[in-house]
Amino acid sequence: MRSTYETLRAKRDGQELTREEIQSLVRGVVAGTVPDYQTAAFLMACVIRGLDTAETAALTEAMRDSGECWDLSDLAPVVDKHSTGGVGDKVTLPLAPLVAAAGARVGMMSGRGLGHTGGTLDKLASIPGFRTDLDQAKVRRALTTVGAALFQQTDSVAPADRTLYALRDVTATVESLPLIVASILSKKLASGTTGIVFDVKTGNGAFLKTIDESRALGRALVDTARAAGRQATGWITDMSRPLGRAVGNALEADEAIRVLRGEGPQRVADCCIVLGVEMLRFADPKLSEPEARKRLEETLASGAAARTFERVIEFHGGDPKVVEKPSLLPQPKQKLPALAPRTGFVRSIQTEKMGFLSIEIGCGRARREDTIDFAAGFLVEKTVGDKVEGGEPLAIVCLGDRPVPRPGFVGEIAALFEIDESPGTPSALALEKL
Amino acid sequence: MRSTYETLRAKRDGQELTREEIQSLVRGVVAGTVPDYQTAAFLMACVIRGLDTAETAALTEAMRDSGECWDLSDLAPVVDKHSTGGVGDKVTLPLAPLVAAAGARVGMMSGRGLGHTGGTLDKLASIPGFRTDLDQAKVRRALTTVGAALFQQTDSVAPADRTLYALRDVTATVESLPLIVASILSKKLASGTTGIVFDVKTGNGAFLKTIDESRALGRALVDTARAAGRQATGWITDMSRPLGRAVGNALEADEAIRVLRGEGPQRVADCCIVLGVEMLRFADPKLSEPEARKRLEETLASGAAARTFERVIEFHGGDPKVVEKPSLLPQPKQKLPALAPRTGFVRSIQTEKMGFLSIEIGCGRARREDTIDFAAGFLVEKTVGDKVEGGEPLAIVCLGDRPVPRPGFVGEIAALFEIDESPGTPSALALEKL
Repeated sequence: MRSTYETLRAKRDGQELTREEIQSLVRGVVAGTVPDYQTAAFLMACVIRGLDTAETAALTEAMRDSGECWDLSDLAPVVDKHSTGGVGDKVTLPLAPLVAAAGARVGMMSGRGLGHTGGTLDKLASIPGFRTDLDQAKVRRALTTVGAALFQQTDSVAPADRTLYALRDVTATVESLPLIVASILSKKLASGTTGIVFDVKTGNGAFLKTIDESRALGRALVDTARAAGRQATGWITDMSRPLGRAVGNALEADEAIRVLRGEGPQRVADCCIVLGVEMLRFADPKLSEPEARKRLEETLASGAAARTFERVIEFHGGDPKVVEKPSLLPQPKQKLPALAPRTGFVRSIQTEKMGFLSIEIGCGRARREDTIDFAAGFLVEKTVGDKVEGGEPLAIVCLGDRPVPRPGFVGEIAALFEIDESPGTPSALALEKL
Repeated sequence: MRSTYETLRAKRDGQELTREEIQSLVRGVVAGTVPDYQTAAFLMACVIRGLDTAETAALTEAMRDSGECWDLSDLAPVVDKHSTGGVGDKVTLPLAPLVAAAGARVGMMSGRGLGHTGGTLDKLASIPGFRTDLDQAKVRRALTTVGAALFQQTDSVAPADRTLYALRDVTATVESLPLIVASILSKKLASGTTGIVFDVKTGNGAFLKTIDESRALGRALVDTARAAGRQATGWITDMSRPLGRAVGNALEADEAIRVLRGEGPQRVADCCIVLGVEMLRFADPKLSEPEARKRLEETLASGAAARTFERVIEFHGGDPKVVEKPSLLPQPKQKLPALAPRTGFVRSIQTEKMGFLSIEIGCGRARREDTIDFAAGFLVEKTVGDKVEGGEPLAIVCLGDRPVPRPGFVGEIAALFEIDESPGTPSALALEKL
């Protein structure tokens, strides 16, 4: 086997590394025997030379094995969904109880929000009492009783990822498909779920703005997860507008409940169905796609999904009555309409910018130590393709305990909406199967 | 101007860096504000993406400017020669007084030996009393009185090179033409000489074994030196055998003196003439190549070069009488012949291996703190193309104060000579002008 130096030289020269060489390097990084400067040189060589699927899988598994790993194979299948992140993406909240109610065990490990996108953990935490700090015993109990476990990634999961990420962040080695894939999957695989459906967002509110970039990431995620022995598939879905109407933690929990009650925005329900079909078919491979879809639609319509959400909330220490009475969620203290300056059609929405502006009223954290204002957020009243009259609200700015960040803030929200003579051709939600 | 992060990202993506960006980075490395891991990532990006001539010149000059720089332009032209290193390469010793005697000012800054090649400073130091620790005032005096200054590179020259080299050595970023060029030239340019002739060695005793690699290095050295505002040219010369007969410090000083007295191996004299022609023409551009050659040959034949060497030695504190009486140099205590096992022609000599074996008897340092045995070395009795009878000496192992390193050592020396039925086609000395 090559020494660290020889491993660096081999990757520098574009050679393929063995699983053992990658493992040895990651172990050295975590143990501190491989110094930062060697790791930095390695990361740069990886970014420029690339890693193939086998190398990416080896890196992913070595990073996963650097910390606590759960084995849930005795409960298999346990299915998971991973979104690459977007604005208003509350899909985990309705999807988990929906798929659980339809008969599959759903285990989802989530992280905090990143950049302009909100974090699922914060959306869950806006439900009074809801706790995501589950240990393995509790996750197992959730899977075998209510059918869905929604839990947070702890510091003992994939510590190699934190070390590598911190170094990537200061050495211009962030933008690398294999390194991004290894970072995402090392944490995902540590939870021990057996099948993962990827929701790769694309468009002006996603991290990857073009379908080509999104497809490349999606393919790499699926291929690497499969190489690591998991079931994997996914969809590229549209993120050129906020998903649904609500942006902000309690507002999104409210919307998730409405989706489960059959009252929510159709686009959010569609997203749940599209992804849920794949999760269900991992759990029961004999199920055809139309059969899976039918079962999910019936589970929604019958109210079984909403009932399962109550049980899931209760298991996690939350108040299940929010499902019947969403007004128990934190409520905004002030609602300020952002008015359309003129009549026309909403042609586009600057979605990423809306995400960043939402952080300013308390929907997310600019720094790690910041606190969240659960009640804050935006309600999108007119979305892409909608007709609007001048003076009608495009969105409602909902404020919790914090004041408007600055004069003109509401006008900035209105300005995110491009109004045109014609509606254009709004993008479909589910764009391409991976 | 880009931040350090942006500079890393730009080079990662194969973009060209500006002079200011490279300067800023090198300044940060020396000041300690750019951490090792960023420098390591930068070096890896440079190795893989490469640096063009302008970038290499900018890096070279930034490294040069990190320490003490002399300005000898008021004495211009001051000419220099740089060899990439080989076994038995004592060319500096006869060349400097030869070119000085022919009318050009010669300033040569030398480093210690590297790897299997001997260091010029050690060869000079084998002359009793010879000192190379000259300050700028003394170098200027040497140039204006005896015409040649032979001095050592101090720790205050190009400190950035030491920092970068230490990091390259542990991050697999040594083998990079632009980084090698910047390392060599940053130190060379610091001495303030105005014209440099490169002697790029090629063959089994050189660092670069093939003519293609040697040509690439040679071109890069010449182009970068010119981009940095110096006169530059050079030759690719053969290093597929030890240069001349002597390998080892006092033995090589002795050979250098014999060359100056017209008694030395023709191949060493030829090397001095070929390089000296270019140095002389830098000093006097009106001189044609045949005129320069003629002047050098006359300077040798008249004894003027040998007289100048006496004055150069005296200026540097050494005993000038060694030129008349080379036996004043340290003499071997023991001479052991390495005998030919059979009759035939010397087809090849494992030159690099001979260099490494010479270190074992005291010709060089395996570690920085090792001492030199000036008297030790090898005398090559039969070289490539020579006929040899079985039982005749191929070489003489000369020992100073140290014993034979191990039983069979002399046999190892004999085994370096490949003896064949036919002489083959021995390589010429001067292979290609740069």
